[in-house]
Amino acid sequence: MEQKIIFTNHVGESIDDIVGQLGSPAVFVLCDVNTQSFVLPVLQAQSGTVAAAKIISTRAGDASKDIEALASLWKSLSDLGATRQSVLINIGGGVVTDLGGFGAATFKRGMHFINVPTTLLGAVDAAVGGKTSVNFNGLKNEIGVFANADAVIISTCFFNTLPQQQLLSGYAEMIKHALLQSKDMLDRLLAYSVVYPLFDSEALLGLLEESVAVKQNIVAQDLTEKGLRRALNLGHTAGHAIEAMALKYQSPVPHGYAVAWGLVVCLVLSHMELGFPSETLHKIAAYVLENYGAHSITCKEYPELISLMRHDKKNPSPDSISFTLLKDIGQPVCGCVVSEEKIEAALDIYRDLMHI
Amino acid sequence: MEQKIIFTNHVGESIDDIVGQLGSPAVFVLCDVNTQSFVLPVLQAQSGTVAAAKIISTRAGDASKDIEALASLWKSLSDLGATRQSVLINIGGGVVTDLGGFGAATFKRGMHFINVPTTLLGAVDAAVGGKTSVNFNGLKNEIGVFANADAVIISTCFFNTLPQQQLLSGYAEMIKHALLQSKDMLDRLLAYSVVYPLFDSEALLGLLEESVAVKQNIVAQDLTEKGLRRALNLGHTAGHAIEAMALKYQSPVPHGYAVAWGLVVCLVLSHMELGFPSETLHKIAAYVLENYGAHSITCKEYPELISLMRHDKKNPSPDSISFTLLKDIGQPVCGCVVSEEKIEAALDIYRDLMHI
Repeated sequence: MEQKIIFTNHVGESIDDIVGQLGSPAVFVLCDVNTQSFVLPVLQAQSGTVAAAKIISTRAGDASKDIEALASLWKSLSDLGATRQSVLINIGGGVVTDLGGFGAATFKRGMHFINVPTTLLGAVDAAVGGKTSVNFNGLKNEIGVFANADAVIISTCFFNTLPQQQLLSGYAEMIKHALLQSKDMLDRLLAYSVVYPLFDSEALLGLLEESVAVKQNIVAQDLTEKGLRRALNLGHTAGHAIEAMALKYQSPVPHGYAVAWGLVVCLVLSHMELGFPSETLHKIAAYVLENYGAHSITCKEYPELISLMRHDKKNPSPDSISFTLLKDIGQPVCGCVVSEEKIEAALDIYRDLMHI
Repeated sequence: MEQKIIFTNHVGESIDDIVGQLGSPAVFVLCDVNTQSFVLPVLQAQSGTVAAAKIISTRAGDASKDIEALASLWKSLSDLGATRQSVLINIGGGVVTDLGGFGAATFKRGMHFINVPTTLLGAVDAAVGGKTSVNFNGLKNEIGVFANADAVIISTCFFNTLPQQQLLSGYAEMIKHALLQSKDMLDRLLAYSVVYPLFDSEALLGLLEESVAVKQNIVAQDLTEKGLRRALNLGHTAGHAIEAMALKYQSPVPHGYAVAWGLVVCLVLSHMELGFPSETLHKIAAYVLENYGAHSITCKEYPELISLMRHDKKNPSPDSISFTLLKDIGQPVCGCVVSEEKIEAALDIYRDLMHI
């Protein structure tokens, strides 16, 4: 079943429509404490369905996406008399949609669910691919299933309640998608002002729709052409290493920020290995520096960063380090093995570009 | 993905073949204490794969099919380093295959699994349909997913370790399948001696293969023709009521025994409502009486039994009671609404047939 994705800033109306199409069954809403305060009251005013729904709460934050929260969700659904015909509406960021999606997909072997992502990262990343999960045994997303929602409703109207940092974090994934797609899409993204609270939410919704389509196309093609999906890993090999090291030394950085810095490293390597245009590399580096700042990396940290890249879970073998690189915008090449020496050279150039 | 079902009494060889086809990944075996004692040593001697596998144990009995057992299975897989390429072999009755199937289907969003049912009921019933589950919040199979195993290996060679009662319990489901299929299949089943320990295990394997095919055909047709699957509920409306009442009054009966008595009630109703041949009804009633004994029902118990039928989870509405009945062998009619008076009359006739 392909997942229905609806781009709209009339979220309440859209929920009423979809639930009506499902035959207006019993409705449950899963929120975390943030969306319960900031988003739920808005939707209760807009939508008869949400106003009449039974509310289930969960804690906020990735650490709460655990099996205790899962068991608590199952218990609430069971005690409140949910059936397979009922629908669970997950309103929140990735924690709520991952947890709620997994809970719904496994309750009585699968009840209906609708995702309403309320963060930019959730909207751009979690809407396609049907990944649901909880963390377990200290490992992220260790338990889960692939299960499509009945619908994902993507809107920009809740983003004004997000901190600027969270917006930028999601925006880095959109830049990644544009790099995989076209110069035109990239130019429009770089020209758009995502600075809180002045952004143009209708224009952002249009950009978001294009961005999600990039991921959809790649995921759809990967059903036949094994491996293309790795293109979505662009910027993530170095990005994950930066994120993991920052976390280890107690100065965590937002995921999207690490991706932004990782993209710069990746484009440097793309230039070195595949002749990616220098001009575009400089343009992206300047954009990242201006919006995300410079993440400092010292020469002493190179060995540890490279070791983290080697053991990245998406790296096929610890004997080598493999990247998705770009020949040009829209031309990804997956599985490029790069030597440690070249990675060190690329990190040197990253530091120059970031004025470190 | 259709599930591969292999009928063989060379189970070890078959496991080695399938795991070889999967690229010989890391192998884990889930057993309960019974299969660990009686079945595992046999398979370890027969199969290099099983001999080299890491063993995970779970408690026996339906009460242990809970989320504690599930979390413990997930923890073992995670600690032992299982990946999505690994395979979990579930060796046991329905508790082990339901729990292990659900655990594997949700570990890292799905690892490989193979089911080796070791009970007749598990072989005839659990091999088709991809149902995996655990009990939760006091409710049977409240949590689960539909997920097909990479293969189900059905064998009769472990049944000699089963108590006679368990064999007969599974055999009642085979009789149900034959009633849905053909007089020829039914006659061969009634002629076969399932008495421990003298049964002919090769002949039983052939009967089992035919029986599983009946369920496979019905489930496959139901993908398009909504509702035919309810045919598999034959005998279960009255059977579940008998089972639930026996449990309530602290004298539980095996599931298949309740199905056998339920089939007699159902055939009486089939005769009354649809003209099912009296001769076949008498033949089945005599077989049930001889092999399963007579389950006593008194007139005073009728209202409670009927109330249980009304609230059976497969009954579409509590305003009426709906049965799957037979016009003749192989001619099921689903959704037959029968009045309370007629059900009482059928229970009277059941008592006559059972010499109560």
